[in-house]
Amino acid sequence: MPAPGTRPYNFSAGPATMPEAVLRRAAAEMLDWHGSGMSVMEMSHRGKEFGVILAQAESDLRALLAVPDHFHVLFMQGGGLGENAIVPLNLSRGLQADFVITGSWSIKSHKEAQRYCDARVVASNAADGHTALPDAASWQLNADASYVHVCTNETINGIEFQQLPDLAALGGKAPLVIDFSSHVASRPVDWRRVGLAFGGAQKNLGPAGLTIVIARDDLLGHALQICPSAFNYKTVADNQSMYNTPPTWGIYMAGLTFQWLREQTEGALTGVEAMEQRNLAKAKLLYDFIDGSSFYLNKVDPNCRSRMNVPFFLADESRNEAFLASARKSGLLQLKGHKSVGGMRASIYNAMPLSGVQALVDCMREFEQSHA
Amino acid sequence: MPAPGTRPYNFSAGPATMPEAVLRRAAAEMLDWHGSGMSVMEMSHRGKEFGVILAQAESDLRALLAVPDHFHVLFMQGGGLGENAIVPLNLSRGLQADFVITGSWSIKSHKEAQRYCDARVVASNAADGHTALPDAASWQLNADASYVHVCTNETINGIEFQQLPDLAALGGKAPLVIDFSSHVASRPVDWRRVGLAFGGAQKNLGPAGLTIVIARDDLLGHALQICPSAFNYKTVADNQSMYNTPPTWGIYMAGLTFQWLREQTEGALTGVEAMEQRNLAKAKLLYDFIDGSSFYLNKVDPNCRSRMNVPFFLADESRNEAFLASARKSGLLQLKGHKSVGGMRASIYNAMPLSGVQALVDCMREFEQSHA
Repeated sequence: MPAPGTRPYNFSAGPATMPEAVLRRAAAEMLDWHGSGMSVMEMSHRGKEFGVILAQAESDLRALLAVPDHFHVLFMQGGGLGENAIVPLNLSRGLQADFVITGSWSIKSHKEAQRYCDARVVASNAADGHTALPDAASWQLNADASYVHVCTNETINGIEFQQLPDLAALGGKAPLVIDFSSHVASRPVDWRRVGLAFGGAQKNLGPAGLTIVIARDDLLGHALQICPSAFNYKTVADNQSMYNTPPTWGIYMAGLTFQWLREQTEGALTGVEAMEQRNLAKAKLLYDFIDGSSFYLNKVDPNCRSRMNVPFFLADESRNEAFLASARKSGLLQLKGHKSVGGMRASIYNAMPLSGVQALVDCMREFEQSHA
Repeated sequence: MPAPGTRPYNFSAGPATMPEAVLRRAAAEMLDWHGSGMSVMEMSHRGKEFGVILAQAESDLRALLAVPDHFHVLFMQGGGLGENAIVPLNLSRGLQADFVITGSWSIKSHKEAQRYCDARVVASNAADGHTALPDAASWQLNADASYVHVCTNETINGIEFQQLPDLAALGGKAPLVIDFSSHVASRPVDWRRVGLAFGGAQKNLGPAGLTIVIARDDLLGHALQICPSAFNYKTVADNQSMYNTPPTWGIYMAGLTFQWLREQTEGALTGVEAMEQRNLAKAKLLYDFIDGSSFYLNKVDPNCRSRMNVPFFLADESRNEAFLASARKSGLLQLKGHKSVGGMRASIYNAMPLSGVQALVDCMREFEQSHA
């Protein structure tokens, strides 16, 4: 096993880097969780040991994100792409739903929802290549929409809502559904503005294969008849996320991550508030460097640049492979941009320390100096 | 970490005991898979490292189960209960499907399929309390069925098909769909009789949250319009199980298990053939002991007793708690029967060694002697 703190920095967009302390604890507990004689993977999900793990994970997540009591926390399977169908199966009632298009993920969500309801685009930033957010005042919200879907951080395009839209102030009556897969737990959530939030765990929370859904009470119980029981929010909630066998290892790893997050501090701040300060500092370090260089370029409107996913381009793209090789040599992994966008992408989730971003900036500066 | 071979024996029905060698390797590789500097949980599913893991897992599974080339191997999410909807969404075409009722799981499969098609019961052993299999010659197969569903091992009822039904010989034209969740890789599969096989991994293959689907070419591409893209077999197959982010850790752990299984030998036999011999010996040891005792009782017809899940009852059920306490003291875990059946259940999957079954028999004998 590598010595503490000697691993390379991993900028993957997801599955993504995890806190080293969490991985070490998982390794140490692999054959015997807390004297039970079992690996977490070997426990009956209905046994008392896993019951403790599940209850603690939910309790820690509620505390971390300050989830109000009238919201359910569900641990599910299928990821963000699964939820693109599962949300309209549960919420649309086969009627209308409004979609705000801000990048690759909201486009996918809108397309999939069309299988189940009248899914309408009420705003889009396609014209500017998904580099700025459509002004909320311009959204053409439908009075009869069953919900309004927004992807609050577009992992591929590197664009993030710095404030959740206030649908009520915009005259909307429908609940806001947010896909917060790639920035969950990186900043607080204003639950007064949210009806349902969903996210795959594999960016900020744990391993792939676990999906987190946090849903307001009144939105459960309206699923279409064709909704698979295993993906019916009310069925899942009524069975404490154990209607079917839940992804127990994913819940355990996410639970360890929740505990790690709760232990983090910045000055007087703890948990998500502390992480937000770190994430702001990390993002500022990287964007400031990019903006101060003519060798690198980020195309996103500074008002909505993602704190989590930083796509950037070399002015001379013929140097992409050389840059990636140089980064790998410096112990900086998985910086290649998404195939649909090209260039580079640095995902700097909660588990990426400031020292990792500093190492990236140092590498970028050095590469620029030796190639300018 | 416990010393090798000192852990208790875990008889959980699933999630279930795993090979100790697999767990030790996973712990050792936790922070750095093969010098990559990453945990498997931290790898991009589209990166070359995970590509190697996925390709090896598929190749080993194909070799283990002798899967013919005209079958696809899919790694999915949602478990057996998810597949109860996903199978009819993909195969039924909204028409008829035939169900053979043999216990709790086939009942659930039939119920869920009614959301999507005309799901008919063509045989049932409900009258005998799910203790014997309905004779295949009596099945009332429908000429227009899109498929015939059979659960080939009923985990809760402890009943197993010792031979796959030969639908063609019965005059059926529809493909056979088998739910082999709880005995996959414990015995060979006669693929000439199968159209599609599915199973949750958490019994014989790995952790919960991974579902294996093995489907004949011609059965893909007929999904209903309402089938979520993430669960459309053709979409999953066309994207090499990476349309959505797959449960990467589950695939890795299953892959390690496939390798472990391939390394097992019994005389000249290897892999699944070797496991079958061990499973026969384990099951014989336990059933013979139960049958030789009037203190314990198994109600299943000897012709279809499960080699994997052995439900049994104490003649005097007031001693259940004392028995479980005695077993725990002997290092035998998770023997309590399913709540719908009561009594005890010993699940003796591939990863349970003969020594574990021997320890259980010894404990049962001792308990009988001190309480008879």
